[in-house]
Amino acid sequence: MFYHDKKLQYKVRVDKPNPQFARALQQAIGGIEGEIRVCLQYLFQAWNARGPVRYRDMLLDTGTEEMAHIEMLATAVCLNLEGASSSVIDTIVGNDPLMEKIVGGGDPRHYLSGGLGALASDANGVPFNGSWVVSSGNMASDMLANVTAEATGRTLATRLYEMTDDAGMKDMLAFLIARDTMHQQQWLAVLEELGQGNLYNVLPIPNSFPQAQEVQEFSYAFVNTNIDPEQPSAGTNRRWTQGPSLDGRGTFHEIKAQPLGQEPQLAPPIPQGHAQTEQMQGSGHKKE
Amino acid sequence: MFYHDKKLQYKVRVDKPNPQFARALQQAIGGIEGEIRVCLQYLFQAWNARGPVRYRDMLLDTGTEEMAHIEMLATAVCLNLEGASSSVIDTIVGNDPLMEKIVGGGDPRHYLSGGLGALASDANGVPFNGSWVVSSGNMASDMLANVTAEATGRTLATRLYEMTDDAGMKDMLAFLIARDTMHQQQWLAVLEELGQGNLYNVLPIPNSFPQAQEVQEFSYAFVNTNIDPEQPSAGTNRRWTQGPSLDGRGTFHEIKAQPLGQEPQLAPPIPQGHAQTEQMQGSGHKKE
Amino acid sequence: MFYHDKKLQYKVRVDKPNPQFARALQQAIGGIEGEIRVCLQYLFQAWNARGPVRYRDMLLDTGTEEMAHIEMLATAVCLNLEGASSSVIDTIVGNDPLMEKIVGGGDPRHYLSGGLGALASDANGVPFNGSWVVSSGNMASDMLANVTAEATGRTLATRLYEMTDDAGMKDMLAFLIARDTMHQQQWLAVLEELGQGNLYNVLPIPNSFPQAQEVQEFSYAFVNTNIDPEQPSAGTNRRWTQGPSLDGRGTFHEIKAQPLGQEPQLAPPIPQGHAQTEQMQGSGHKKE
Amino acid sequence: MFYHDKKLQYKVRVDKPNPQFARALQQAIGGIEGEIRVCLQYLFQAWNARGPVRYRDMLLDTGTEEMAHIEMLATAVCLNLEGASSSVIDTIVGNDPLMEKIVGGGDPRHYLSGGLGALASDANGVPFNGSWVVSSGNMASDMLANVTAEATGRTLATRLYEMTDDAGMKDMLAFLIARDTMHQQQWLAVLEELGQGNLYNVLPIPNSFPQAQEVQEFSYAFVNTNIDPEQPSAGTNRRWTQGPSLDGRGTFHEIKAQPLGQEPQLAPPIPQGHAQTEQMQGSGHKKE
Amino acid sequence: MFYHDKKLQYKVRVDKPNPQFARALQQAIGGIEGEIRVCLQYLFQAWNARGPVRYRDMLLDTGTEEMAHIEMLATAVCLNLEGASSSVIDTIVGNDPLMEKIVGGGDPRHYLSGGLGALASDANGVPFNGSWVVSSGNMASDMLANVTAEATGRTLATRLYEMTDDAGMKDMLAFLIARDTMHQQQWLAVLEELGQGNLYNVLPIPNSFPQAQEVQEFSYAFVNTNIDPEQPSAGTNRRWTQGPSLDGRGTFHEIKAQPLGQEPQLAPPIPQGHAQTEQMQGSGHKKE
Amino acid sequence: MFYHDKKLQYKVRVDKPNPQFARALQQAIGGIEGEIRVCLQYLFQAWNARGPVRYRDMLLDTGTEEMAHIEMLATAVCLNLEGASSSVIDTIVGNDPLMEKIVGGGDPRHYLSGGLGALASDANGVPFNGSWVVSSGNMASDMLANVTAEATGRTLATRLYEMTDDAGMKDMLAFLIARDTMHQQQWLAVLEELGQGNLYNVLPIPNSFPQAQEVQEFSYAFVNTNIDPEQPSAGTNRRWTQGPSLDGRGTFHEIKAQPLGQEPQLAPPIPQGHAQTEQMQGSGHKKE
Repeated sequence: MFYHDKKLQYKVRVDKPNPQFARALQQAIGGIEGEIRVCLQYLFQAWNARGPVRYRDMLLDTGTEEMAHIEMLATAVCLNLEGASSSVIDTIVGNDPLMEKIVGGGDPRHYLSGGLGALASDANGVPFNGSWVVSSGNMASDMLANVTAEATGRTLATRLYEMTDDAGMKDMLAFLIARDTMHQQQWLAVLEELGQGNLYNVLPIPNSFPQAQEVQEFSYAFVNTNIDPEQPSAGTNRRWTQGPSLDGRGTFHEIKAQPLGQEPQLAPPIPQGHAQTEQMQGSGHKKE
Repeated sequence: MFYHDKKLQYKVRVDKPNPQFARALQQAIGGIEGEIRVCLQYLFQAWNARGPVRYRDMLLDTGTEEMAHIEMLATAVCLNLEGASSSVIDTIVGNDPLMEKIVGGGDPRHYLSGGLGALASDANGVPFNGSWVVSSGNMASDMLANVTAEATGRTLATRLYEMTDDAGMKDMLAFLIARDTMHQQQWLAVLEELGQGNLYNVLPIPNSFPQAQEVQEFSYAFVNTNIDPEQPSAGTNRRWTQGPSLDGRGTFHEIKAQPLGQEPQLAPPIPQGHAQTEQMQGSGHKKE
Repeated sequence: MFYHDKKLQYKVRVDKPNPQFARALQQAIGGIEGEIRVCLQYLFQAWNARGPVRYRDMLLDTGTEEMAHIEMLATAVCLNLEGASSSVIDTIVGNDPLMEKIVGGGDPRHYLSGGLGALASDANGVPFNGSWVVSSGNMASDMLANVTAEATGRTLATRLYEMTDDAGMKDMLAFLIARDTMHQQQWLAVLEELGQGNLYNVLPIPNSFPQAQEVQEFSYAFVNTNIDPEQPSAGTNRRWTQGPSLDGRGTFHEIKAQPLGQEPQLAPPIPQGHAQTEQMQGSGHKKE
Repeated sequence: MFYHDKKLQYKVRVDKPNPQFARALQQAIGGIEGEIRVCLQYLFQAWNARGPVRYRDMLLDTGTEEMAHIEMLATAVCLNLEGASSSVIDTIVGNDPLMEKIVGGGDPRHYLSGGLGALASDANGVPFNGSWVVSSGNMASDMLANVTAEATGRTLATRLYEMTDDAGMKDMLAFLIARDTMHQQQWLAVLEELGQGNLYNVLPIPNSFPQAQEVQEFSYAFVNTNIDPEQPSAGTNRRWTQGPSLDGRGTFHEIKAQPLGQEPQLAPPIPQGHAQTEQMQGSGHKKE
Repeated sequence: MFYHDKKLQYKVRVDKPNPQFARALQQAIGGIEGEIRVCLQYLFQAWNARGPVRYRDMLLDTGTEEMAHIEMLATAVCLNLEGASSSVIDTIVGNDPLMEKIVGGGDPRHYLSGGLGALASDANGVPFNGSWVVSSGNMASDMLANVTAEATGRTLATRLYEMTDDAGMKDMLAFLIARDTMHQQQWLAVLEELGQGNLYNVLPIPNSFPQAQEVQEFSYAFVNTNIDPEQPSAGTNRRWTQGPSLDGRGTFHEIKAQPLGQEPQLAPPIPQGHAQTEQMQGSGHKKE
Repeated sequence: MFYHDKKLQYKVRVDKPNPQFARALQQAIGGIEGEIRVCLQYLFQAWNARGPVRYRDMLLDTGTEEMAHIEMLATAVCLNLEGASSSVIDTIVGNDPLMEKIVGGGDPRHYLSGGLGALASDANGVPFNGSWVVSSGNMASDMLANVTAEATGRTLATRLYEMTDDAGMKDMLAFLIARDTMHQQQWLAVLEELGQGNLYNVLPIPNSFPQAQEVQEFSYAFVNTNIDPEQPSAGTNRRWTQGPSLDGRGTFHEIKAQPLGQEPQLAPPIPQGHAQTEQMQGSGHKKE
């Protein structure tokens, strides 16, 4: 169950409000690399956790922390939009250039739908989408999804950091970037723990499926689909084509793409599917 | 540029067509863990690749291979639906139990929209969504996104494998599972190469942002948001709260969640936003 | 900022696990009437709140409570899916009828994508969508949106209550239904407070737009678009066509639909828009 | 069944075409607060109406009127885009600043996809989404959803009114704002009628579920989840924590958030779900 | 502007209510081949029409007719769900097999979200999406989009016809199928009229772009991307590889796929994009 | 199965990089008229093809070609964004006007999410959606969908051509426009072949449903829903109201819209649906 107090996790200050930066910050709220996604992802993984309770607890801790990050960013959006009140909206009537600024440069829905408030959308106004919440039931898959979210999330935060010279915003982002640094580490630490000290031992994911049931001759083969004899793949010593595999269970090698399957043959359409009559007459794969 | 031949990469055979299994297979075509996603993800990463060309070439190779996987799975869906022709649709009229089977157990759009053909959707008929295609411009982020896709994808494939006892389908899935094994390895091999032999050297991602600009006291701190004194977090020796950090640049430690920020104070609404009059009278954060 | 403990807000018990009921419960998690929506809606309204702080505080309180409701429902989904382990999945191989049950009656992604865990989706697997989060910046609009969410949410919960005879599930739903009862009341209480004791005083929303700027002859007129002289609208004493308006500022009356505007006339296409040549020759609205 | 004539419900005139305002108007066409939504919402409620026919008739009347509002707004978008023909597109080649205007300030799809025509999308180009159409089968829920739609819709219209100083656009919006005034009233009038003269009698919605089956000790309790002893909730005389409930069936009171449920305990993963092996070994909630 | 009466365009009768058929009918309401799409598509094309007014009038006529088709189908869904009241929902408690029927075979949201009413969604519960509404500003494109919609729509209707043996439903569908027959004709008739008696004269669409500006050597060339020498493309006398082109402006011929472009070379990442450091060191396309 | 080489199908050159044009190009990648859609549409139609193999082969050929078009356009986006490195991003800090350019005029996610790379989205950042992939199982429907896609696609390409004066971009677009010219022809050629030399013989689609089962009096009737006696439909000699039908099986005529159906009557709500009590008391359609 959840609780709150009335303060922010870290201070949020905007020295020079900027509606365009408000729009950019939306990516960190409602985008696929954003905080709503990681918040829900960690919490769903916690609620769905089957296995050692230590991981469930950890996921609850960080999922709850992420809620506070959404709060910080939503506050930052609001403060960046306050600039709209003095310099932009006030003068819309009779002043095309400024209207252009709020409508074109920023997200017009910040004004139209939010009254200068944050939205549950990304930087283009595309709504947050629940399909991004990964909770697979396989902890190694989930931890990789989490590291990925923190890697793309930290990359996004560093780009936002570069986009602004507002000292308050830079400070807030420097805090969020630091948290992403840690979060990358902690999910990887779980993977290392699962691999008993060696991350590669978690491979192949899931490790509970017997490899004997794979078509093993393709388990460590890099398939080269490039057919141009004059333009071979670049690079010598490509690690993925030689040497022992990372999990130590095979040897990397390279094969040229080649079909092992048949030309597909489907039955003719059934009458009730109402294809064109001509499709039903022509037999699927006979000689023409 | 791209080419094709008329055969499948690996043989696809369905001994006992099953419309319900056709529906489940859709998850591997148009779902977030599916093949359209990885195909487009690897190709967009290739087309957007800035940096060593060896990685671009590799991404092109595997993105092209994934196109052949969509083809295999779409063929498998069609073949599983052919069962619908003899045992199900033929007898719909006047036979409620069978109609229930095609409409309820399978995806009714396989018949209604596809005439017994595959769709660009997941197992619930939710369409493929381009937001799932991650191409961040940071190669480490991208490689992690790729390993994640192959980890959730392989997990999905093993579950599909368990759902069927059709020998042809099991064989096809055993091939796809083997390819996922390799693909997990190869993206990790790139990360290892980037880390010059030690994957942890890629951290924190992006590694081109100077850590001095983070709020560093929070870079290696695990924040515990659990406030229940009687129910502490489970587990001793939790790796993420002690010892050197994985990247060797800090020391893990644990702190209790505590607000460092202020209670947020927003300006009153601007007149043009047409809040209720009472909101504008009440000053935002004055004493009441 | 946010905190958690490790217990649920109210007990969650499933006596007779049922994957189909798990699917139905998803509507209360990720559907438009569900708990993710109200959680985010109340929190965004709090974070965006401009005006009296008492409402911000109230929104934070209830938004945080809703997070605990998602947790309860996600747990309920997991427990309902545990039935899948003993009676369904175990026997999939070689047993079509049971496979039909998990694949057809329930949500196949509960197994395929979640490993028997809850998803951020509705009862049809359609992902949660951030567009549902209403935070308009006008408090009366927002409170109405909140009452609506609790009214459709309570209706949903009573239907779920009717669908099950599992005593544990009925108990959990009886708790959630009670909370919805209160939440309907509290948002209406804010509206009454805003209306200084009379809810109708908040009308028209927003009340900060001068009604003199409306085309006032249409402000209290019911427009009847029914053109069938033999089938008039049913009902005598239709309140919305007679008597003083609810806000006491006008008088209801009824008018027959009638166009007051012109037949629209658009300019011919511009050359750069590349319409068909024939469209550009034919002048838009000249006599033919 | 439906009919049309060739004129608009109210005159639509654009004195000074403005592609950026065309973009903003899209929110009133295809946004969640827009006219496609209310048109379909009222019509679906009419078509699904079970109960007194007087309400069905009323919903048909207004749903049909809303269709004419979409028509007016689409016409307004087209006329605002005609400005693009003389001042913008003509000079794109060789003139970056103007291209910036059409591409940046407006919606580029107005030109690219529509040839200077309206789209079924919102102000950010996000398509209309059928999930917004609420038709719950409970008339009180539906009427609240309708008042909400008209409240957010009127708020949007007043903001559009502030954004422009075009006399024709202001006149059209003044008409639409007046209609929203009426529509708010009429849906509330139904609620009042349902409540037999007192709107609060419709509570709790649905009123057909016996309150004896709720966990009644929580039916009129405000749950305070704020744990900060130094920062209590603002406001004295908070109506929702004291006095009789609005429906007269209980007494408001306040309780501190406290868990009444257990720490959740899920079964270990089933083998066929292919979690990592380590998850299956570690027992879910045993001591570590 | 629009009007209605209270009757249906054609009689709707359900002899044997069937919730599963109700679900299938949803495809014809809210699916991509459904009536909401054509209704809005024709009306938006009318409202956006630039060029001869005769086409605008025609589009208004048929767009308005389609509204009546949605009404018929929504009524049909409701009547098919009434079966749920007597035979299904009444007995849910304590009766798993029947619950399975409503939850599994039909759309559970028909009950949960609609109280046995129609939704603005397709047969899988995926909401109607405004992106399907094509109004391109080029009349030939639009007419083709309209024929396509009526072709896929009629195909859908014939499949629904096959799925049921309810005489009332078959009669309703026979009417809708007849309307689709006409609608296919009428949009093609416009194309023929535009082509001055020969439909092929509308090609290439748009016909207002000077063909001299195309890279004309590829304007009538079929590109064969099949690289398998042993499995040539099937069929002799393939019309698209020989003979005069349909528009009489060129000659069909076949060429083997061959790259005419370069290997793409992108600049290295910019520092502010925060790629990995290694990407910036490795020069994009130098020798390795 | 699929293969690639490392070169582009046609040369891609950008003389004057322009982030705003990069945004516009996205419509041709991930928009409904774009290349991802046609690529997947043709390939799914190929993989689902039942009937003469000559069409399957043709669809494979062109679907594979379209993949190379996505590649060209993604490369063009990247090259247009390289301008952002020297003239825009470098100077963001301390330079509001330029920041406005990248954030407002272009797609901010090109920088924030892509590091100056292409996205699988349209010009407004709305992600590609799999619902656009039409593969109906009826070849005539599919071919019409394909011509439509090439008609709207060519229209889009000509508009992009008008938007730029970059010689490299114009050349690339001139190539793509030529390919669209051919693709329109080839799908129509299939229709002509199916119609045995006369395209109209494919009507009505599907032609495998016996017309005797339609309600034939409405099969060739144009329904006029215009009720304004003073404003009749424009145009004399409207082809769709007179003369033989295009398929030669009927005669066009015009009828005034008139209801042939009943006023719908639904049963009262079932108790378990928890409508308001008042709905259940009021009988659906009795006299009031």
